[in-house]
Amino acid sequence: MIRVIAPRSGVAFELKRGESLKVIDPLGEQVADLVAFNRHDTGEAISSGRSIDYASKIYLTTGDPIYSNRSSVLLRIVEDTVGRHDFLLSPCSAEMFRILYGDDAPHRGCFGNLAAVLAPYGVAPDAIPTAFNVFMNVPVDAGTGAIHVEPPLSRAGDYIVFEAQMDLLIGLTACSAGMSNNFAYKPIHYEVSGRD
Amino acid sequence: MIRVIAPRSGVAFELKRGESLKVIDPLGEQVADLVAFNRHDTGEAISSGRSIDYASKIYLTTGDPIYSNRSSVLLRIVEDTVGRHDFLLSPCSAEMFRILYGDDAPHRGCFGNLAAVLAPYGVAPDAIPTAFNVFMNVPVDAGTGAIHVEPPLSRAGDYIVFEAQMDLLIGLTACSAGMSNNFAYKPIHYEVSGRD
Repeated sequence: MIRVIAPRSGVAFELKRGESLKVIDPLGEQVADLVAFNRHDTGEAISSGRSIDYASKIYLTTGDPIYSNRSSVLLRIVEDTVGRHDFLLSPCSAEMFRILYGDDAPHRGCFGNLAAVLAPYGVAPDAIPTAFNVFMNVPVDAGTGAIHVEPPLSRAGDYIVFEAQMDLLIGLTACSAGMSNNFAYKPIHYEVSGRD
Repeated sequence: MIRVIAPRSGVAFELKRGESLKVIDPLGEQVADLVAFNRHDTGEAISSGRSIDYASKIYLTTGDPIYSNRSSVLLRIVEDTVGRHDFLLSPCSAEMFRILYGDDAPHRGCFGNLAAVLAPYGVAPDAIPTAFNVFMNVPVDAGTGAIHVEPPLSRAGDYIVFEAQMDLLIGLTACSAGMSNNFAYKPIHYEVSGRD
């Protein structure tokens, strides 16, 4: 069954070892921030710094593992119709909208959405790691190191599939940041293999 | 007074708001991993994901702030004679030496050194963030996203100076990874302004 994440919102759910999570961009150019924790010990979480180090690349795609802060593999990417995702940037947040967008009455962003849905599982806001930002398109200038947030390369129906390598707690959003989504807030669809 | 961090070791110390920390490469081509926490609430720590987002670049240098996971400025870079540091990669660790170097009896690395020196301050290993890797030289291929660890650009006597924007707990190492230091393990020197 395909589930819907409404624009600018988020969900949390368990994903058991061996299950697959398909994240779908139903309309195109929409980012989904994904975080994952060891279901049985949420002190272990996805780590951008470990995953990039072990993959020796910043853009992960089919076949690449996502490691934890304890150097265990939490997820593996098993299908990917887009091939461009970000693993450098923190989830958008009220503070980010103030600092980068100059917004006086900011949305709580993916960070606030993740904090809200993860709280019942005992995950504190401080423990939310740099997300794997599905479909987010952040080119880097190799000379200067400058980064730019550009519209996602995903078109309607594009997707990525992750396979859980241990029992996990997942947080997943339909991203709330204008620049990341070509200034249109759209839903995200997802499906867990083998469940209604 | 200049203090010495022996090769492949680390230290932790307090840095008060307004004080400056000078990190010196005495012999050249030596990395120092730096982490920082709010001294009064160590749940707040430097954040690569927030700092890169707000700076819109991956290579930070003079004038750039280092933000926390709560979007506060913890440190500001006020001098930098090198201009190339890494903020993508986690501290080297026993697991890293096993996974990337195939080392059967690995050193505990900067991660183990930081965990040991930060433990008396109540910082758990899981809470050690992606470090600001002073002098570490990690070029990125803009097309493929591939990263390469190359020898530091620092020469003997080069340095960087950080100014604390709040009371901080600092962890600092002389990095233990061969590839990061052109395969020579050297000391790091540091000095805190206004202290003997």
